[in-house]
Amino acid sequence: MLTTFGLRSAGKKILVQTPGRQVRFYSAPGDRAIPAAKQKYVPTEGTYPKGFLVGSAHAGVKASNTKYDDLALVISDRPCVAAALFTKNIFKAAPVQLSMQTLKERQSKGIEAVVVNSGCANAVTGALGLKNAARMAQEIDGLLSKEQSDASSSEEPSRTLVMSTGVIGQNLPIEKMINAFPKLHSSIGDTHQHWLNTAQAICTTDTFPKLISRTFTLPSHPETTYSIAGMTKGAGMIHPNMATLLGIICTDCSIDTESIRPLLRANNIRSFNSISIDGDTSTNDTVALLANGASTPNGVAPLVAPHVTSSDAALQDGLAFHAVLAEFMTDLAKLVVRDGEGATKFVRIRVRASGNIRKSQDVARSIACSSLVKTALYGKDANWGRILCAVGYAQDVMPGNPDTTTKVVVPERTSVSFVPTDGSAELKLLVRGEPQDVDEVRAKEILEMEDLDILVRLNDDPATPDPEAVYYTCDFSHEYVTINGDYRT
Amino acid sequence: MLTTFGLRSAGKKILVQTPGRQVRFYSAPGDRAIPAAKQKYVPTEGTYPKGFLVGSAHAGVKASNTKYDDLALVISDRPCVAAALFTKNIFKAAPVQLSMQTLKERQSKGIEAVVVNSGCANAVTGALGLKNAARMAQEIDGLLSKEQSDASSSEEPSRTLVMSTGVIGQNLPIEKMINAFPKLHSSIGDTHQHWLNTAQAICTTDTFPKLISRTFTLPSHPETTYSIAGMTKGAGMIHPNMATLLGIICTDCSIDTESIRPLLRANNIRSFNSISIDGDTSTNDTVALLANGASTPNGVAPLVAPHVTSSDAALQDGLAFHAVLAEFMTDLAKLVVRDGEGATKFVRIRVRASGNIRKSQDVARSIACSSLVKTALYGKDANWGRILCAVGYAQDVMPGNPDTTTKVVVPERTSVSFVPTDGSAELKLLVRGEPQDVDEVRAKEILEMEDLDILVRLNDDPATPDPEAVYYTCDFSHEYVTINGDYRT
Repeated sequence: MLTTFGLRSAGKKILVQTPGRQVRFYSAPGDRAIPAAKQKYVPTEGTYPKGFLVGSAHAGVKASNTKYDDLALVISDRPCVAAALFTKNIFKAAPVQLSMQTLKERQSKGIEAVVVNSGCANAVTGALGLKNAARMAQEIDGLLSKEQSDASSSEEPSRTLVMSTGVIGQNLPIEKMINAFPKLHSSIGDTHQHWLNTAQAICTTDTFPKLISRTFTLPSHPETTYSIAGMTKGAGMIHPNMATLLGIICTDCSIDTESIRPLLRANNIRSFNSISIDGDTSTNDTVALLANGASTPNGVAPLVAPHVTSSDAALQDGLAFHAVLAEFMTDLAKLVVRDGEGATKFVRIRVRASGNIRKSQDVARSIACSSLVKTALYGKDANWGRILCAVGYAQDVMPGNPDTTTKVVVPERTSVSFVPTDGSAELKLLVRGEPQDVDEVRAKEILEMEDLDILVRLNDDPATPDPEAVYYTCDFSHEYVTINGDYRT
Repeated sequence: MLTTFGLRSAGKKILVQTPGRQVRFYSAPGDRAIPAAKQKYVPTEGTYPKGFLVGSAHAGVKASNTKYDDLALVISDRPCVAAALFTKNIFKAAPVQLSMQTLKERQSKGIEAVVVNSGCANAVTGALGLKNAARMAQEIDGLLSKEQSDASSSEEPSRTLVMSTGVIGQNLPIEKMINAFPKLHSSIGDTHQHWLNTAQAICTTDTFPKLISRTFTLPSHPETTYSIAGMTKGAGMIHPNMATLLGIICTDCSIDTESIRPLLRANNIRSFNSISIDGDTSTNDTVALLANGASTPNGVAPLVAPHVTSSDAALQDGLAFHAVLAEFMTDLAKLVVRDGEGATKFVRIRVRASGNIRKSQDVARSIACSSLVKTALYGKDANWGRILCAVGYAQDVMPGNPDTTTKVVVPERTSVSFVPTDGSAELKLLVRGEPQDVDEVRAKEILEMEDLDILVRLNDDPATPDPEAVYYTCDFSHEYVTINGDYRT
């Protein structure tokens, strides 16, 4: 029962084998066989929003990639209202800087395409990087104009958002990419397979494409069925601070230009901003929402965010869409954690009853980011002392908590449990500061499961209201170290 | 060239073998053979402060430990002026709570002993934990009183500081320990071997005992030679926020009771508070400084901190001692990083020219704590984009930086270099925001060395003053995961 790790050797890919797990190659894009355990997360069919066409092509952004698609394109047959959230990292990648500017100049409307490349992040690439990102947008604009007879002026802002993901600090092989753009543009279509191929093309060390599609209705006109679909990617450098690596969400309802960004922001907090794989906030994080209104019946006004309307019908529709988007974005974000580099576990950290949801969130994040908690989970070791340790330093080391006079963590009020995800009884580890006589056999059983909930009650008292902060994370394995010890080659 | 990892099997210790490295057992205290590469850090002789006696004994705090010393005792033949810094973790271990109270009641004087156990942290152990910690102090007090004919009243505060290190959330086997105290007390002596044995007894997953001793003089009476000696331990859960796991520093000069704590605090910032192994701030961090005055000639006043004196002679002495303590504490703290769990590298992060040393320190800490930087270092991969990434998120995610209006990180002004520790030329990776055409062969050569300096210039401009923040860290290896996936058994 030995685990073997292939050591790096110049120019070769790493191969890792662990018992019962699939092989993962670490040079993106790599082997495209989806691990058996992950196949259930890959949809075999879907219902996609009207008016959106998607496709992918191979350019060889990374020289070692000789056959897998590494360009992706999402276009809408009519202009979209759009918003995007970007990384807060100071070193914003060139495509991030460009797309921020495009959305600003476009005032959240008139977006018709998103072009993505994997294999190179075009981050920390100076002036040339910005020029290359702009070139990508221009070329796609040109292809859109050729397609549409009403070619727009080249003076107006671009209609294309750009995203890149891969190694930081290397320049794009821009000519090779541009040469592949016509092929990319002609690959587009609206079938499930088109969407799946596109979701695959944006992947790097991901082991499976991350794609979700759903339908929904709105209370004011329940006879109309809308669709929402989205893809995301990311497996390492995941600790979003606005958004995760890349996410593209498309819907065929129409959304008001003033409301689309607040809607995206509000739902991002508990989805993409509530996941962590390794605590590193990337330079390229971008999640975009595009709404083209293709399914909105004539005469139906665009959706508005619930907080900006005084009309009851609009409020009900806004709330309904808010709920759809909340669940959709959370499910999409969870797929990223499910595919965390080297991850063998999917762990939900639930923190209750601090009286302050943001402080609860800080505590949850502290647990989710602790290397010691994550290695113990990997080892299936019920080392709950490490969970407590991370709770205990959360307030002093986490951001936004300079105020130590209003401490929400008090040892004598704190309880910690493992909650099995098979519905069996919760296992109490600490109750109001007193360690419990833990049944180690039961703890081991719970830790054998892939999914686990860790529940922390900061004030374990039935009288305290129980709003719950949730953070999603994975464990920290040998494989993570292998992957990241040699990512660039 | 394959690395093999033994998987856990119930009740057995883990064995890890990597090419060219020694075997490390993960159940403390374990095999005491010091790895060949670490032997140079273990002194073969020393000059120790007068009046201090140290010793160690075996109690079997951890049931699996049948022979190695896990109790340590430091006593002074006269009362000491003392100060200690403790973890900021909310879940302060019982010995931390007790020692804080003792020092407060004693008003920083009258301390005669420090008793330490390894194998169990006595942390998050509720009321029983506090009782057990107090029992340890009382028993040592009793042994001190028996030795001294002037037995002090049992009503007065304890003269003994208590420290514990090991697993969190388990109770001490207190009777077994107390039974071994007479043997512990009779083991004390003042030879180099006594000090080395004592430094070894406080270890857990450490691979070598960490002990330094030095002599110094003071300007006002240069004919007197003083000694300072200290021991420390720690290899995981190291991201001190006041002090590292355990540190005990003894000197035979005399220090003013009002000054000892400021002196310790000031020097802690750039020593124990400037190291990180895994970003986890322990529940038990304690570093204590004891000064017994045994070498201070009659008529020489106790040392005072430089900021509290108006006498020139006292100022010169204070500055001299401050400098001695600064270097001593930094060297002691560096030994902890040198023995980081699974570490193969010793990395100094130097951040210059932010115009604000605390902000530079935040940036250095962010790099030092990045899992992706640390795994790249392990893989000897010159993936400098990850260093930039960590610089870029430092201001937003690190504590103490809510003010985003005064950003110290500006991409266009930032430069990053590897500085080889063999004195050869610096390798520039990024210069004022522009990536350099890096000689990968040279980068590889530099990364083959065990020691590495990463130099970040936040404002790469000769006109900017260059005070440098320094942070010490190590890499992140497979072995770290192995160690921490199964620490408790």
